[in-house]
Amino acid sequence: MSVDEKTDSPMYVYESTVHCTNILLCLNDQRKQDILCDVTLIVEGKEFRAHRAVLAACSEYFLQALVGQTENDLVVSLPEEVQYVTVPPP
Amino acid sequence: MSVDEKTDSPMYVYESTVHCTNILLCLNDQRKQDILCDVTLIVEGKEFRAHRAVLAACSEYFLQALVGQTENDLVVSLPEEVQYVTVPPP
Repeated sequence: MSVDEKTDSPMYVYESTVHCTNILLCLNDQRKQDILCDVTLIVEGKEFRAHRAVLAACSEYFLQALVGQTENDLVVSLPEEVQYVTVPPP
Repeated sequence: MSVDEKTDSPMYVYESTVHCTNILLCLNDQRKQDILCDVTLIVEGKEFRAHRAVLAACSEYFLQALVGQTENDLVVSLPEEVQYVTVPPP
């Protein structure tokens, strides 16, 4: 428990062990439904919609490629040596 | 281990228990540095930069408020009854 400095009233902080997992699952659902996606990756001619911030948070490559890009409909073609694979569900 | 259907070669899948936490920490770092942020929230006159997709993944309120908004520089003023509080680091 903490005290809110502005009101001196007690403040209860809820900590969840599944919060991170749930948010990433929601972000993946958004991605699959093309909700709030803001970049298109092209790999082997196939298009994948994604969230720039999530790609950049996972990968230094994407951080470099995406930061500073201001286009609304950004399309990034990955190098030819990059393949996509379908990962079976766990 | 799985087999990549396209090449019939074995595919190793790395599973990490800290992946989710790390990504959210990275997204929070991006937020603090205003990297790839795409929305400004106004609470009690104070501005907070954020990522629309992350807000929508955490909150049905933001999902409704943000999906379909196409402005580049979206500003969302939260209702007057909403206050911001500073949560001390754990």
